[in-house]
Amino acid sequence: MIFEINPKLDLVLERNMDVSVELVWKAWTEAEHLKKWFAPKPWDIPICEIDLRPGGCFKFVMKSPKGQEEQDAGCYLEIIKNQKLVWTSALLPGYRPAMKPTNSPQILFTAIVELEKQGDGTKMTIYVIHANEETKLIHEKMGFHEGWGICIDQMDDEIKHGRID
Amino acid sequence: MIFEINPKLDLVLERNMDVSVELVWKAWTEAEHLKKWFAPKPWDIPICEIDLRPGGCFKFVMKSPKGQEEQDAGCYLEIIKNQKLVWTSALLPGYRPAMKPTNSPQILFTAIVELEKQGDGTKMTIYVIHANEETKLIHEKMGFHEGWGICIDQMDDEIKHGRID
Repeated sequence: MIFEINPKLDLVLERNMDVSVELVWKAWTEAEHLKKWFAPKPWDIPICEIDLRPGGCFKFVMKSPKGQEEQDAGCYLEIIKNQKLVWTSALLPGYRPAMKPTNSPQILFTAIVELEKQGDGTKMTIYVIHANEETKLIHEKMGFHEGWGICIDQMDDEIKHGRID
Repeated sequence: MIFEINPKLDLVLERNMDVSVELVWKAWTEAEHLKKWFAPKPWDIPICEIDLRPGGCFKFVMKSPKGQEEQDAGCYLEIIKNQKLVWTSALLPGYRPAMKPTNSPQILFTAIVELEKQGDGTKMTIYVIHANEETKLIHEKMGFHEGWGICIDQMDDEIKHGRID
């Protein structure tokens, strides 16, 4: 592991899924599929852009039924098919440092998704690493574990219903 | 090119060198060699750490003859031998977002070094990309072109004297 986990700065989510590593990878890396699960329903994702290469764009817009919108843009860093996906919100597409507006609720983080084949299933570990305790706590209080947990349930459901293939 | 050059945000330095691309690559990527040229003399570099892989550490300390010290730490993003080297100060080693102290003179940037073999020589292009005009101007006024120009002359000199091999 190239980074050291620091419980004060990092959020970790681990899930054992009984779906194949290939389909989990597709769910993470193809925009048409990511749209189906990456926002907790009834929010949806009308716009998602994935340029799957180091420095490539990862951008999406989430929309609530009432029309509230949230968007984020980041940059892929590492892509190892069926194994590892890394992106960060600290860089814009093309590696340009992001300058978040002061007092913005946006949080700088890097996300590392690791997938491991386990029989017919998949062990997925998500590390979300922050610069300092403050941003880690904000992210946690925004409902990190609950929110991502719901989304992963949605992904699992989409795969099991054959909607990610 | 994965990023679009923006003259308001980016600094670009281009040099045609009559030394081989392989030796220029060594000068950039081996700590013992980088120490010889990466600080404008009479400053030197007592400490340099290079972990040449995506997410790996790029860290150095520059020291003046009077004992003044400056240090910086960043993270490698892309490494294509003899062709392309990318690192950023916006992420710490292991991809952790960097949180620079407010009012610090440190500047967030990503540097992209591209090398192109030209006969026995090398065309080197360095792009240094910033989040906003303010940081680009600060970097420029710190003497970007002059400073990097001197350092590249030093690299050229080290290679021609056979001290990088």
